[in-house]
Amino acid sequence: MRITVAQLNYHIGNFERNSRLIIDAIKKARDEGSDLIIFSELCVTGYPPLDLLDHIDFIRRCEETVYKIADSCRGITAIIGSPIINTQPEGKKLFNAALALSDGKVIFEARKALLPTYDIFDEYRYFEPAKDFRIFEFQGKRIALTICEDLWDEQPFPNEFEKSRLYTISPMDELAKYNPDLVINISASPFAYTRIEAKRKIFIGKALKHGIPVISVNQTGANTELIFDGGSLIIGKNGKIFKQLPFFEEALYTFNLESLYEDFTEPEPVVPDTVMLVYKALNTGIKDYFGKSVFSKAVVGLSGGIDSALVLVLAVEALGKDNVVALILPSRYTARQSVDDALKLTSTLGVKYEIISIEKPFTAFEEILKPIFRDLPPDVTEENIQARIRAVLLMAYSNKFGHILLNTSNKSEAAVGYGTLYGDMAGGLSVIGDVYKTDIYKLARYINRKRIIIPESIIKRPPTAELRPSQLDTDSLPEYRILDEILFRYIELQKPAKAIIEEGFSEELVKRVIKMINANEYKRYQTPPILRISHKAFGAGRRMPIVAKY
Amino acid sequence: MRITVAQLNYHIGNFERNSRLIIDAIKKARDEGSDLIIFSELCVTGYPPLDLLDHIDFIRRCEETVYKIADSCRGITAIIGSPIINTQPEGKKLFNAALALSDGKVIFEARKALLPTYDIFDEYRYFEPAKDFRIFEFQGKRIALTICEDLWDEQPFPNEFEKSRLYTISPMDELAKYNPDLVINISASPFAYTRIEAKRKIFIGKALKHGIPVISVNQTGANTELIFDGGSLIIGKNGKIFKQLPFFEEALYTFNLESLYEDFTEPEPVVPDTVMLVYKALNTGIKDYFGKSVFSKAVVGLSGGIDSALVLVLAVEALGKDNVVALILPSRYTARQSVDDALKLTSTLGVKYEIISIEKPFTAFEEILKPIFRDLPPDVTEENIQARIRAVLLMAYSNKFGHILLNTSNKSEAAVGYGTLYGDMAGGLSVIGDVYKTDIYKLARYINRKRIIIPESIIKRPPTAELRPSQLDTDSLPEYRILDEILFRYIELQKPAKAIIEEGFSEELVKRVIKMINANEYKRYQTPPILRISHKAFGAGRRMPIVAKY
Repeated sequence: MRITVAQLNYHIGNFERNSRLIIDAIKKARDEGSDLIIFSELCVTGYPPLDLLDHIDFIRRCEETVYKIADSCRGITAIIGSPIINTQPEGKKLFNAALALSDGKVIFEARKALLPTYDIFDEYRYFEPAKDFRIFEFQGKRIALTICEDLWDEQPFPNEFEKSRLYTISPMDELAKYNPDLVINISASPFAYTRIEAKRKIFIGKALKHGIPVISVNQTGANTELIFDGGSLIIGKNGKIFKQLPFFEEALYTFNLESLYEDFTEPEPVVPDTVMLVYKALNTGIKDYFGKSVFSKAVVGLSGGIDSALVLVLAVEALGKDNVVALILPSRYTARQSVDDALKLTSTLGVKYEIISIEKPFTAFEEILKPIFRDLPPDVTEENIQARIRAVLLMAYSNKFGHILLNTSNKSEAAVGYGTLYGDMAGGLSVIGDVYKTDIYKLARYINRKRIIIPESIIKRPPTAELRPSQLDTDSLPEYRILDEILFRYIELQKPAKAIIEEGFSEELVKRVIKMINANEYKRYQTPPILRISHKAFGAGRRMPIVAKY
Repeated sequence: MRITVAQLNYHIGNFERNSRLIIDAIKKARDEGSDLIIFSELCVTGYPPLDLLDHIDFIRRCEETVYKIADSCRGITAIIGSPIINTQPEGKKLFNAALALSDGKVIFEARKALLPTYDIFDEYRYFEPAKDFRIFEFQGKRIALTICEDLWDEQPFPNEFEKSRLYTISPMDELAKYNPDLVINISASPFAYTRIEAKRKIFIGKALKHGIPVISVNQTGANTELIFDGGSLIIGKNGKIFKQLPFFEEALYTFNLESLYEDFTEPEPVVPDTVMLVYKALNTGIKDYFGKSVFSKAVVGLSGGIDSALVLVLAVEALGKDNVVALILPSRYTARQSVDDALKLTSTLGVKYEIISIEKPFTAFEEILKPIFRDLPPDVTEENIQARIRAVLLMAYSNKFGHILLNTSNKSEAAVGYGTLYGDMAGGLSVIGDVYKTDIYKLARYINRKRIIIPESIIKRPPTAELRPSQLDTDSLPEYRILDEILFRYIELQKPAKAIIEEGFSEELVKRVIKMINANEYKRYQTPPILRISHKAFGAGRRMPIVAKY
C-alpha cells in the first residue's frame, strides 16, 4: 500500500483555502500512485476553530466541504479531520472526527476520545468524547485511526502536581484488542520548544508497545498565536524513525507502507537546534498573521534596544523589507547612541524609517497636566506618558497607512509588569511576548550567525527603558539572568515559591518576583495575542483571576 | 432539624476573608440553634479560581482552610465547597467537592459530576467528574448533596443547535435510587438577566419530579467580571417556593426543615424588575472590583454623552462621591452643550471634576505627523488620536493619584468595533460593556426614577463621538434600535444570518453587522474585563479566533 502524508497549513474558517489545499494534495498523491493520503486534525476548519463551532452554519460549511473533498477522492482514499454532529440525544453537540473518504462517500469515521482541556486547549467545551472504538479495515490492513491526544493517555506533565495519566481510558489499549496492523494519528499539535523530545517519545513508545508502525500527521503554519511545527513522524514497527517531515514547512511525503514492517536502520538523527526552531516558529507566526489576514505591512517602534531590534529583523525576514517600516521616536531621555544604533539597523536591513521626536506632545501633556499635578514630583506617570505618546504615533501610522503595529514586549517584562499598558504593550501581535529576555539574546546571536545584522552595540548595551535620566532596567528589576530562572520555574514549571527557594534562590527575591507576576495580571489581560513558543505562554493558555488575593 | 442557608460574598484566593466569613456564620447559626448550615460552591476559594487550581500550594491552603473551618463546627454541621485532591492514579488532579464538616472532621464528601465547560465555565480544565453517587445520611434524613450543574442535566440552551441534555448522566436520577428526603444544591451561579426564570424552573422541576424539598444555596458578590446574584431558593416538597433570599446581598436564613414537607401556600411571587437587577449587578460589580482589590478610587472620562454619564453615576453610587473623579476633556469638536451637560451632572452628583482641553497635544501630534502624513486627508486616524490623547490623560491621572480608570464603552459599540483601541476602549474595568445601547437608556431612566440625576438633555441628544465636525453615530452605524436587535440575535442567541434575515431584517444590513462583529475580534481581545450581565458577554465567555475567515 502506498501512503502519502500531507503536512499542510490551514486557515481557520477558510473553507475555500483548506479544501483547495486538500484537494490539490489528493490529486498529487493519486498521480504518485498512492492508495491513501492522510491529512491532519480538523484540517477542514483549521485549528483551533474555538466558538465558531457554536454556530450551526459553520458546521454546515464543514459538512459541505467534507462532501466536496470526498467527491475528489476517486481511486484514492483520504483521511481528513472535521467536526461532525453528535446525533445522540445527549451530550455535547459535536465530535472531533477523523473521516475516511472514498468515491464521494465517508467510508469510516473515528471520533476523538481524549479531549485536551488544559493550557490553550478547550476541546471539551465543544466535543463529546468517544466511548467506543472500532478498527478501520482498509486494503487488508487493520488501522487504529486516532486523533492527536488519543495517543497521549500517558504524558509527562511539567507540573509535579499533575498526574501522568490525565484520562481514565487509553484509546490505544482499547484498539489494541482488535489486533491492528498500524496506527494512524492525525494531529494539530502546536509548537513548544520544550516538547520536541516528548512528542517523539510518545509516538515511538506506542510503536514499541504495540509492535506496529505509527504514522503521525501534524499540520504546520500559525493561526494567530498558535504555531504548528509540522515534523510529522513515520515510525516503523521496530520503533525507529523511518522519516520525519520538516519543521514549519508544508510537505507531501509518499512511501510504501511495507517498508515500515522491515527492520530498517534509522537515518542519522537530526536534533534540531532549539534557538533555530524558535526563530522559525516566530517567523511562521508573523508570516501567517499577515498572510491569513487582509494586512501585508507592519510598523515597529524602534528604540535602539535589543527587543525592538529583534522584532524588526523578524518582521523583515518574514514579510520582506518593503513591507516593514520602523518609527524611531526619541525623547529628551533618549541617548544619541540609541538613535545611531537604530539607524544602523535600518540601514543594514534597508527598511524605510521615520524619526519623530516626542518632545512636542510630551511638553503639551506636561503643560495641560500642570494645573492638576502641580508640584508633585515626576514618577512613573511621566514615564508612562512617553510610552503612550509613542503608541499614539505608532497607531496613527498604523491607521493612516494600514500597517499593523507589532508589539515588542518580551516575556520577562510581561511577567513582572515592566511595561506601559496602551504604551509599549500596544500592538496587533506580540512577536516575542513568550520569549524571556535571556533568550532574546540567543535569538539575536542566531540572527547574527552569518553576518552582523543587529549591531553589537545593541546586544552589548545594558537594557534601559530610557524614560528618565540614566535609567537602567536593573534599577527596578533583578538581573535578567536570575529573574528568568525564577520566572521559568514559577510560570512554566508551576513550582511553589518554597520549592524555588529550596533550589537556592533568595527568599526575598522569589517572593518579590511572584508578587510582581500576580499583581500584573490586569495588564497582561489587555495585551495583544502572543506568539506561543513555550508550553506555558501568557494568554489563553494561562487563565488567572484579576481581582484575587494570592 | 434546623437549617441555615448562608449566602455570602467570597473573594478568590483570600482564604483569611473566606474562612472568617464562614466561621462567623457558623457561630451565628449555632447561636440560633441550627443543626446544619449550608454554604455555596467553592466558597473556600471563591469562584472561579481558574488556574490558581494548578498550583499545589493553593490546594494546600484550601486543605488547611477546610480543617480550620471543620474545627469551628462544634455542635453544628457545615456544608462547604472546596477543591479536593483526586487520589486515584488516573484523571484530572482535583474534584470539585461539597464537604460536610463536623467536630473537626470531614464527615461526608460529595463530588461534582456535571462540570460546566461552556461560556465562562472551564470546570473540566481542572476537575475530574464524579462517577458514583452516595447519600449523605444526617440526623435521620437522607440528603442528596449536589453541586450546581449537577441539577442542570436538562436545560434550555438559547442556541437552537445545542442539545437540551448536555450530559449523558443525571446525578439526581442516580441519587433518587436511594430515596432521598431532601436535595441540597450548593452553587456558584452567576447572574444573567435572561436566566432568572430558568433557574427557578430547574429547582422547582427537581422538587416536583422527585417529590422532595430542594435547598439551593448560591453566593453573591462579584469576582472581576463575574457577578453572583444570590437569590438562594428554598423549595418545598410541594414544588412551591418557601423562601427566596435577596438578590445581590449577603444573607443568613434559618428555618425548620419540617416546614418544607407541609403544604404551605407560596408567598406572593416577587418578580424582580430586570432593569433593577441589572443596575444592582453593575453596582455589585463595581463595588467588589474595588472592595476586593487595593484600590478605592475611580476616574471616569466624562464626555457629555449618555454612556459616560451612566458610568459616572454607577461609580458614585457604588463607591461614594468622594471616591470618584470626572475628567472632562473637550476638543475643538466638542459642543458647548456636552461640557454644560457634563458639568450639570457632576454638580448634581457633587463629584470632583477637572476640565482639560486636549487641543494642545492634538495640535502637537498634528504638527509632528505633518511631515509624514503630508496632504493626506483627515480620516479615522485623526479621530483615534483624539480618543487616545484622552486615554493618555485619564491614565496619567490614574497613575499619579491611584484612581482606576473605568471604561465607558457599551456592548453595541464593542460588538461593531465603534471605539478606539488604547483610546475610549481603555480602562481597568468595563462597567457597561455587556449592556446594549438601547438598555443604557433603560438604566438611565431607572436611575432618574425618583429624581433627575442624569440630565434629560443627555438622554435625549442623538449619540455622537464628537471626533469630527457634526458627527453622529448614525453616520457609521444603523439606528441602535435595529442594530441591537440584530446583535442580540447573533451574539446571545447565536442565530445564523439566514435565520435573522428571515425574521424580517434587511439582508444587506444583517450581513454588514455580522461582518463588523467578526472584523473587530482583535479589538475586543484587548479590552478590559467586562462586567457580565447577560448569558453571552464579550470576554472569557465568547472565544473567537482572530486571524480567521468567517
